[in-house]
Amino acid sequence: MAVFKVLRVDLSTEKISEEVYKEDIIRKFLGGRGLGAYLALKELPRGIDPFSPSNKLYIFAGPLSGTANLATSRINVVGKSPLTGSYTHSNAGGNFAYWLRRSGYDGIIVEGKADEPVYILVKDGEVTIRPAKHIWGKWTGAATKALLTDAGFEPDEKKAGVMTIGPAGEDLVRIAGLRFSDYERFAGRGGLGAVAGAKKLKGIVVWGTHDPMKEFVDRQRFLKVATEYSVKLMNAATSKALHQYGTNLLTNIINSIGGYPTRNFETGYFEEAEKISGEYIKQNYVKEVHGCMLCPIQCTQITVVASGPYKVAGEKIKYEYESTWALGANLGLSQTDAVLKLEKLANELGMDSISLGNTLGTFLELVKRGKIQYDISWGDAASLIDLVYKMAYRIDIGDDLAEGDWRLANKYGAPDAFVGSRGQGFPAYDPRALKGFAISYVTANRGGDHLEAYSPTWEVLGVPEKIDPLCETPECISKQVRLVIYAQHLMALADSVTYCKFDTLDKDGIFETHISDLFNAAFGWDTTPQEMLTIGERIFNVERLFHVKEGKWVKDELPPKMREPIKTGPAQGHTASKMFDEGIKEFYKLRGWVDGKPTYETLKRLGLEEFQYLL
Amino acid sequence: MAVFKVLRVDLSTEKISEEVYKEDIIRKFLGGRGLGAYLALKELPRGIDPFSPSNKLYIFAGPLSGTANLATSRINVVGKSPLTGSYTHSNAGGNFAYWLRRSGYDGIIVEGKADEPVYILVKDGEVTIRPAKHIWGKWTGAATKALLTDAGFEPDEKKAGVMTIGPAGEDLVRIAGLRFSDYERFAGRGGLGAVAGAKKLKGIVVWGTHDPMKEFVDRQRFLKVATEYSVKLMNAATSKALHQYGTNLLTNIINSIGGYPTRNFETGYFEEAEKISGEYIKQNYVKEVHGCMLCPIQCTQITVVASGPYKVAGEKIKYEYESTWALGANLGLSQTDAVLKLEKLANELGMDSISLGNTLGTFLELVKRGKIQYDISWGDAASLIDLVYKMAYRIDIGDDLAEGDWRLANKYGAPDAFVGSRGQGFPAYDPRALKGFAISYVTANRGGDHLEAYSPTWEVLGVPEKIDPLCETPECISKQVRLVIYAQHLMALADSVTYCKFDTLDKDGIFETHISDLFNAAFGWDTTPQEMLTIGERIFNVERLFHVKEGKWVKDELPPKMREPIKTGPAQGHTASKMFDEGIKEFYKLRGWVDGKPTYETLKRLGLEEFQYLL
Repeated sequence: MAVFKVLRVDLSTEKISEEVYKEDIIRKFLGGRGLGAYLALKELPRGIDPFSPSNKLYIFAGPLSGTANLATSRINVVGKSPLTGSYTHSNAGGNFAYWLRRSGYDGIIVEGKADEPVYILVKDGEVTIRPAKHIWGKWTGAATKALLTDAGFEPDEKKAGVMTIGPAGEDLVRIAGLRFSDYERFAGRGGLGAVAGAKKLKGIVVWGTHDPMKEFVDRQRFLKVATEYSVKLMNAATSKALHQYGTNLLTNIINSIGGYPTRNFETGYFEEAEKISGEYIKQNYVKEVHGCMLCPIQCTQITVVASGPYKVAGEKIKYEYESTWALGANLGLSQTDAVLKLEKLANELGMDSISLGNTLGTFLELVKRGKIQYDISWGDAASLIDLVYKMAYRIDIGDDLAEGDWRLANKYGAPDAFVGSRGQGFPAYDPRALKGFAISYVTANRGGDHLEAYSPTWEVLGVPEKIDPLCETPECISKQVRLVIYAQHLMALADSVTYCKFDTLDKDGIFETHISDLFNAAFGWDTTPQEMLTIGERIFNVERLFHVKEGKWVKDELPPKMREPIKTGPAQGHTASKMFDEGIKEFYKLRGWVDGKPTYETLKRLGLEEFQYLL
Repeated sequence: MAVFKVLRVDLSTEKISEEVYKEDIIRKFLGGRGLGAYLALKELPRGIDPFSPSNKLYIFAGPLSGTANLATSRINVVGKSPLTGSYTHSNAGGNFAYWLRRSGYDGIIVEGKADEPVYILVKDGEVTIRPAKHIWGKWTGAATKALLTDAGFEPDEKKAGVMTIGPAGEDLVRIAGLRFSDYERFAGRGGLGAVAGAKKLKGIVVWGTHDPMKEFVDRQRFLKVATEYSVKLMNAATSKALHQYGTNLLTNIINSIGGYPTRNFETGYFEEAEKISGEYIKQNYVKEVHGCMLCPIQCTQITVVASGPYKVAGEKIKYEYESTWALGANLGLSQTDAVLKLEKLANELGMDSISLGNTLGTFLELVKRGKIQYDISWGDAASLIDLVYKMAYRIDIGDDLAEGDWRLANKYGAPDAFVGSRGQGFPAYDPRALKGFAISYVTANRGGDHLEAYSPTWEVLGVPEKIDPLCETPECISKQVRLVIYAQHLMALADSVTYCKFDTLDKDGIFETHISDLFNAAFGWDTTPQEMLTIGERIFNVERLFHVKEGKWVKDELPPKMREPIKTGPAQGHTASKMFDEGIKEFYKLRGWVDGKPTYETLKRLGLEEFQYLL
């Protein structure tokens, strides 16, 4: 029978308790993001400060994490975001979900606030809150090792699951992330690292010998299905490409269609993109390729900057497309060494590299527009590196930047320098050139997000069908909206399983049908693929209800800059206005929402009547 | 009548009291370093941890600070050093001594330890302890401005005297310094910034309208003498040279005689010195020349690094010979931009630039010798910059480096990689090539110090007579020892007046005769020049008694590397062994010391019988 065993740790009272969610809840929310969102909506009092002890971190694996089914090793975190002031979720790969499940738990809820720095150790079901004063202050790499050592393990990230924060989280930097083992994995977006910091929680170490498949009703059947689908995923063309180049194979592709945001979305084409492309970096910087625990893709590209002014002494750098864009093109920077150094600093100091790029980009625009006096210009690597340190430690102007892009733009009287939604900056695709994002970014519940519905799947990869990313005919708009909605459900589903989203990029990937098969095999359920998508829809609505409850970010709004034509490149002249303005109406209609809010009928259809009081 | 009014602030009890030292004490110790040393010896219990509340900071101006006599604006600090574990003193220029005297006090003693960060505000005799939690964490430049603002002044360093510490002091980095206004002045050596950090003392602000000459018995006579001597000092050739090039005019001079320590004293000649010489930097980097309050020399060279990978955005950099050597030649680094950037980081993060260079140099040697595994080599600017951040915040290997060169070398099993004495690293002259330093460095009470007796005065400048720095004849050795002893007294005197030592570099400078004249005029005393020198000797002995009391560093020892011949350059083949081994015997004899300890007869001769119990 499907159960989801949660460890609840109150750092204020040091009370440690256990609760088990049964099939009635699991079949509605699965785990990961879905169950996290549901509990957060139920438990977090309206209007609390994200830094208050009342905020909670829901650190949840999924019902298939740590099993024979591959690519389901992601760990998902939900909480109230210090960056956006409302609901957020974020997830990371690595081995934490695996070791958490082996520890005997499926999820951990951290609430309250410790007086002095602590970490939580879960060793084969045994839970202790341990002092971490001697680890507080350490950068994330060293903190990971120190936590392992203190917990009695070798300082090797493979030996146990570790979550930690860096100085940025400790200093309540609003874009701080949570680093997870193994190797520079980040639940970056939304600033949940600062929530851990506010709780004086330096980290969590999990390990054990529990078999996560123990409760499966038909292990043989599950093994058969899981093996088939794992092999299928391994053989998908996108998996092979990701293994070869990692996520950054996207730079040249997205730049070539004019959708590569440059200089804080000034334009969609970066003239110097070549030097930060996946191909160039693969040839000149990548030394190793790794992957998450139990993953058939192994996409992680590990680079080295061995000399020169941006040398990273004795350390490897995990690098990604989003980070390279955020700290490269978005800052007008094409010096490969410097971009990789910035990525390393983001990871070590513990900040979301995307929001870091958003914030620095916003800062540069504010300087350019004369709103702030500072000696910096686009591509000014030295000044950018200094600012990253100053942000993490909240030094001087870094104290303002540590508040994130949205607050920075508002403080300095230029709200339109912020390019994002729901208080979080947009990532590495210009929605004026990849118009699916005009709907997808803006309607994303966590704000400014490409992962709640990844429209290049159809716009670039043609899955399930090719849509011209620039097309604005009524038919194209309608298709985009429908695909975004479908993807939003599929992604919410994936984040709750917890699948890696790279399973859905290829026609030979893993979709609702396969997920339904896996759950039916594991738990003897009789779900249909449509029921699986409805779980996704339910989760998406629960998340929106959090905003409704807070009375914040309910309406979906396109940032002003997206209404200005792209200045240069292949998508020159395009805006996101038409797609958004017309699409959002259909989006609301199809969702059964009015003005960004689900109606009672919608809640009822999704079995969410218990939240009708919020309407 | 001469009085010295001291403010005593106990941060544990918040007790604020006042005590006035009268002529019986003043005429024996004057103020500044002398009075500080005397009180520290009397008050500090034997064996205390430098970070304990029992340690004290004696922040003293001199009896001539803030008066019409110029070049006496230095502020002197005495305390137990976290770096050496015994007595230290350190002083800085700027305007703090001036504003302290105008506030109505001549000195401040800070003792105890606050629970939360505080600063001390002295406004025209009114003293308050104010919360500084909102300033804690700031780098020294921003902290200075924040302290001024909080105290009700414009954020302009000219408006009041400010002392502050940076993150290094807060993090108890053992080489942390105290920054004083106006503009990047440091009492750097000995780590007293970390003592302030341990006391949770972020800073001190002093201001007032008191007239420091009010107690002078014959103001007219004093004004006449002071004016004459101030003009005399202004017209000295060395003053003009210092004004033009600053202290760094020394690089080419010292390198040309083979005494410019390179790569942690591997040799005495740096092939690439040109790029970090005063002449080169003047031509290419210096944008302004400033000076201390009431100083006729104005030697401060202010540079700018406006672009490139070591750009210092929007800020000026005060740079000096010692710092440029320590963070340049001593690390095998000749990239001017990078050296200046390192100097700026030292100042902003709040570390003694000399000991920072010593520590990084020791680290590099340890790596080269295989004692530590780290990807770094001589002149590796990028890695060095990262390490400076890591030291200030005690991150990873930076935590070891933050303990300073002596502890680092010992921890990693190569004590001889430390080049210094009494636990403090040697500065920018190789005592194998400028042999006066073989005596002067090693016998310096604060350890590893060039300023307790600056032998280039005679070896390079020929004041009072030219001595060949390489000469080792019995006659030369004897002359060196006698001149070192004379200079030790003159310097102790200057630090207690508190004169800038640049008054003694020129035959047309200021010596004991002039100081005697000034005091006689100010207070109606009848001192002789010899009495003035005896004050210096008394102070020097009091300091040595501190070590005797602690049972630490009593013996004077030449570090092993100074017994190895210089490998290259004009002084190739020379060692410091003969000068030291023979000189130290005569030194002890002339001083009336046995094995580094004053005898009873010596104490009696100097009027220090009260300390005979220490023998």
